[in-house]
Amino acid sequence: MTATSELFVVLQDGSSTSARGFKAGALAAGIKPSGRPDLGIWASEVPCVAVATFTQNTFPAAPVMLSRERLQLAPRAQAVVFNAGNANACNGDRGLRDAREMAELAAARMGIAAELVLVAETGIIGEPLPMDRVRAGLARVELNADGGRAAAEAIMTTDTRRKDCAVSVEVGGKEVRIGAMTKGVGMIYPNMATMLAFVGTDAALEPAFARSALKAVVDKTFNMITVDGDTSTNDSCFLLANGLSGAPELTADHADANRFVAGLEAVCIDLARRMAADGEGAEKLLQVDVTGAASDDDARKAARAVVGSPLVKSALHGQDPNWGRIFAAVGYSGARVDPMRAALWIGSVQIARDGVATGASKADASAEMRGDEVTFHVDLGLGTGTARAWGCDLTEGYVVENSAYST
Amino acid sequence: MTATSELFVVLQDGSSTSARGFKAGALAAGIKPSGRPDLGIWASEVPCVAVATFTQNTFPAAPVMLSRERLQLAPRAQAVVFNAGNANACNGDRGLRDAREMAELAAARMGIAAELVLVAETGIIGEPLPMDRVRAGLARVELNADGGRAAAEAIMTTDTRRKDCAVSVEVGGKEVRIGAMTKGVGMIYPNMATMLAFVGTDAALEPAFARSALKAVVDKTFNMITVDGDTSTNDSCFLLANGLSGAPELTADHADANRFVAGLEAVCIDLARRMAADGEGAEKLLQVDVTGAASDDDARKAARAVVGSPLVKSALHGQDPNWGRIFAAVGYSGARVDPMRAALWIGSVQIARDGVATGASKADASAEMRGDEVTFHVDLGLGTGTARAWGCDLTEGYVVENSAYST
Repeated sequence: MTATSELFVVLQDGSSTSARGFKAGALAAGIKPSGRPDLGIWASEVPCVAVATFTQNTFPAAPVMLSRERLQLAPRAQAVVFNAGNANACNGDRGLRDAREMAELAAARMGIAAELVLVAETGIIGEPLPMDRVRAGLARVELNADGGRAAAEAIMTTDTRRKDCAVSVEVGGKEVRIGAMTKGVGMIYPNMATMLAFVGTDAALEPAFARSALKAVVDKTFNMITVDGDTSTNDSCFLLANGLSGAPELTADHADANRFVAGLEAVCIDLARRMAADGEGAEKLLQVDVTGAASDDDARKAARAVVGSPLVKSALHGQDPNWGRIFAAVGYSGARVDPMRAALWIGSVQIARDGVATGASKADASAEMRGDEVTFHVDLGLGTGTARAWGCDLTEGYVVENSAYST
Repeated sequence: MTATSELFVVLQDGSSTSARGFKAGALAAGIKPSGRPDLGIWASEVPCVAVATFTQNTFPAAPVMLSRERLQLAPRAQAVVFNAGNANACNGDRGLRDAREMAELAAARMGIAAELVLVAETGIIGEPLPMDRVRAGLARVELNADGGRAAAEAIMTTDTRRKDCAVSVEVGGKEVRIGAMTKGVGMIYPNMATMLAFVGTDAALEPAFARSALKAVVDKTFNMITVDGDTSTNDSCFLLANGLSGAPELTADHADANRFVAGLEAVCIDLARRMAADGEGAEKLLQVDVTGAASDDDARKAARAVVGSPLVKSALHGQDPNWGRIFAAVGYSGARVDPMRAALWIGSVQIARDGVATGASKADASAEMRGDEVTFHVDLGLGTGTARAWGCDLTEGYVVENSAYST
């Protein structure tokens, strides 16, 4: 994370425990066959205002059902207990009992009420949780203020890199910090992806503002990344705000609300880009900008169709400026299109204008696809709608990785 | 094609010219870099009732715009001129002029009115048609009654096998034949796929019946196959009926209308399955049956989501019975689901019941995925809606093939 604006400052080595009062701990409980860290707790020293967004998959995993229910009763939580290696999805009543017990065990370890603990799980679907290992692990886990890095490593599944960061913003003259971690590189698709995201801030947030800020930011960030178009059963993005900064409570009409939202968006953009770049098998990050759409919603549809197209993704992998595939994806996105007005840039090379080839050199366009970050820009020439989406190339590595995951 | 029912008889070595009065011709005009046959005409000796379905992509190719316009003016045609190697899409006004000239050249060669000629093209997008080669080729093409095979080969792009077949049905005591050919193995997705389909029959069809029969059959066949979720700019399915069988004209309420529809469906199912099995890089044909859905529409959504899921397709490739991915795909399909009621069979092995694992052996389920045709059956336990969809596995070959197509 490098960008810093007038509205926020990026913190060096930021993590999900960078905000005051946040702590975490993780260990290897034997849930992942690899023996890597796979179980942990991320928590605040005091109860928080808590809001979340969850998968729209109609086969939600047990932890999603449990966490959603708790937050519907009250927007309050103090901790999230998590495991990676087992999604605890498609496990029926047993799955719900196990998720509830996980929350109880974490609450007992911390000496707080079980209702203040949310649950996040990711991994194989349809296998019961090995509860003996979960029990033994949670009895041993130690939380501390620099546990963010360990937690970010323990939530990884097929991720190749840890993903966390933090920023600080000024609210009412006080420094407020926002720290976060995410995981998720396969079964990634908006609404939501197989992603888990944990965002902790020491700002004081009015619950309604927390909810609307999180939804607005998630729609522009995590919901704009695509790896393979598969929407997971387990996606969850949690925002916990403990108020320990001492800054005044933020509501939608507070003068510094925009600073907080800018900081939250910066954190989520950084993590979303890193998730797309670490997509299973990915070698290139693709950013698609759509401008000139009839509406922002049309721009979002078009941008998501392009980053999601297997043909575009394959062409990107081969550095092949096969631009017709990009227009074809826009054409089936559902966005309003006038074929005679569309323009397209691959990097800085304008390859199409008024719907037809400009005659730009294919070699030049291919050269723009050589690096590990590639940008396509589509202008639809119809209005002022804009959107940005992120994805990655489709490689042989994706197929190899997903051909033999459970067996 | 092997299935024969009481309603129709499969013709040995059937092709798009099996019905009386149909003829075709093709040759290598130099449009495909490979030097293989790539240009031709498929026609009837007399004008036909003609109907078609086209891509819903909002960047339709020039031949789609031209053919759609002609059939909107009148449901009549006598020939389709085609090329493979160049889609003539995203070529602006020049593309439309070139498509119109192709129709005029074919009409001149046959001595008929240009308005009776439709156009179908497939291949690279955004490259102008090499009209000098098209002109030279169409001046030489020879049509004959056993030209079906040559035409089926000339419409291939990345197809590895020719796809054509024919059946006969009895209408009013007379034998009516239905012959057809298709191409399309990438950028394949319902509504429509990059597919071209040519169906010729010597039945006499009332235009309204022809239109409704074709739409109903396409929705159950070509619109239920998925290779990669990309919808092409060029998809077209033509049905030409010349009446030369001497059978009475079919309308929706004719006693033998169901025989004709059964024959048309048999032809289209056979070709749809062969297109899915020949999907780019594919090694396995996947058939997904959904039963017990709240409606047929829900069943279609669920079946299409499963055959389209990259994670399911990758697992199929690895013969990995990772059934949670199948439920996850159903869960994001938009179909109504009660997670506690869903059941799943991989081949004949029931792997889930009431939304959870049955405990069936993974080795047994994997064994059911070993052949080159694999069936998944999802029962949603909610109603009487059913659907069937076809797809294929996702292999390293798909990625390799699509990483370097145009350059």
